[in-house]
Amino acid sequence: MDECTFEVGLRWRDLDHQGHVYHATVLTLLDEARTEWFRASIGIASPDEYVVARVTIDYRGEITRADDRIIVTFGMDRVGTTSLTTREVARAPDGRLLAEAAITAVLWDRTSHRPRSLLPQERGDASRFVRSDEDDLG
Amino acid sequence: MDECTFEVGLRWRDLDHQGHVYHATVLTLLDEARTEWFRASIGIASPDEYVVARVTIDYRGEITRADDRIIVTFGMDRVGTTSLTTREVARAPDGRLLAEAAITAVLWDRTSHRPRSLLPQERGDASRFVRSDEDDLG
Amino acid sequence: MDECTFEVGLRWRDLDHQGHVYHATVLTLLDEARTEWFRASIGIASPDEYVVARVTIDYRGEITRADDRIIVTFGMDRVGTTSLTTREVARAPDGRLLAEAAITAVLWDRTSHRPRSLLPQERGDASRFVRSDEDDLG
Amino acid sequence: MDECTFEVGLRWRDLDHQGHVYHATVLTLLDEARTEWFRASIGIASPDEYVVARVTIDYRGEITRADDRIIVTFGMDRVGTTSLTTREVARAPDGRLLAEAAITAVLWDRTSHRPRSLLPQERGDASRFVRSDEDDLG
Repeated sequence: MDECTFEVGLRWRDLDHQGHVYHATVLTLLDEARTEWFRASIGIASPDEYVVARVTIDYRGEITRADDRIIVTFGMDRVGTTSLTTREVARAPDGRLLAEAAITAVLWDRTSHRPRSLLPQERGDASRFVRSDEDDLG
Repeated sequence: MDECTFEVGLRWRDLDHQGHVYHATVLTLLDEARTEWFRASIGIASPDEYVVARVTIDYRGEITRADDRIIVTFGMDRVGTTSLTTREVARAPDGRLLAEAAITAVLWDRTSHRPRSLLPQERGDASRFVRSDEDDLG
Repeated sequence: MDECTFEVGLRWRDLDHQGHVYHATVLTLLDEARTEWFRASIGIASPDEYVVARVTIDYRGEITRADDRIIVTFGMDRVGTTSLTTREVARAPDGRLLAEAAITAVLWDRTSHRPRSLLPQERGDASRFVRSDEDDLG
Repeated sequence: MDECTFEVGLRWRDLDHQGHVYHATVLTLLDEARTEWFRASIGIASPDEYVVARVTIDYRGEITRADDRIIVTFGMDRVGTTSLTTREVARAPDGRLLAEAAITAVLWDRTSHRPRSLLPQERGDASRFVRSDEDDLG
């Protein structure tokens, strides 16, 4: 199984009134890192090519201004016919666990506004990140 | 079991490049509606009083500019010692299902930066929204 | 001269770490109110129809969570060939002055990615909001 | 006169429905770069230490996803008793002019919620960025 790690720099405006990164903004940060991963590893060049269908996220630690960036490690839980389900772990530069998430992304045909099937090349590239024998159930 | 329904108006900037409300922004909208619910029904006056520990959300339909607002119906899945787990269903004004979410909010002591126990009044108010006999497991 | 007034509800996430609405977010709020004004009064139905070319804004007072909404009064400084320059005054529900801004919006042809001329109907509708004899200089 | 240049990476969510960075978001990007400048050069460590009192910005070119970051060059227009007025020029990596802005930041005492005077060290550091003899008028 391959894994990939990407960093995202924080902005001051990511903080909310409580002084930590707002919970919804964490999804924006993961999205940004995932975009880099999809582009570099699976040939999906832009978030325009998919829609997010499902998110599960556990917030494990506060992300504060002292963390200038987060580091996200990606694996794949499942490669479906039209969807990818990722496994995403965000850590602070000091290694502190910040969040664990699973995202289901559905490949999207922007002209028909409907899901599209993964291309063979995309399937192959995505499957390299699947753990053990969990591939190809859908 | 009680339920509560609150509306949140959309903004043009909630749309992303794909023309629907960005997936992370949907959490901001739910947060806004939940804040009204918590204030009106449970006596938790501000998002400053809790942190979001866990989110599960299924996106069921695109929220577009044609939807000037969303309507969120809230129930409670579980009332814990220091946490509330909600059940949140967002619909368009025309009744179209948009998203279903569960949020675990941990009550937060802002001076000690630690979880705090629900007050008896808060427990009582929150329990009115729990379905059947699922209350008070934690 | 006509004037128009529109309200925009605040969200908790509009606050920044300092506890007041973030200065860039104030522009988002004005944009939202202006969209209503343009749609209701000038027949410009969506922010997709123009780009913002210039902003001047003076922040006159803190917008806090105690202000559940802002109230924006709009007038027109200038109606150009391809642009509108507005005059925007934001107040709190208690009448407190919050911000004064002038925005130059350039009408935009989305297919050619170039400015377009105001339609005669748009010019006429926009000119009703111009003070005295400042109209039609461009 | 000194100048300083800082970069800010773009995020996909900075784009609006029109496909370029939303006009209000450009202020967030400038704010992020300015924070780095203030910290590195003037000893103002955080945006919590000042409030933005006035913004003038001219948008000179579209910022699109093809621009992975913007590059902001900072100078100082004026060093006042309690305020700094900056001169900010944003360019794309290919040198294309994107925006020109002037921001008035008022140093802010967070405990009293009132402006505070610049410290002598801050005045000295800030004055190095002032053009010619425009310093110290306020």
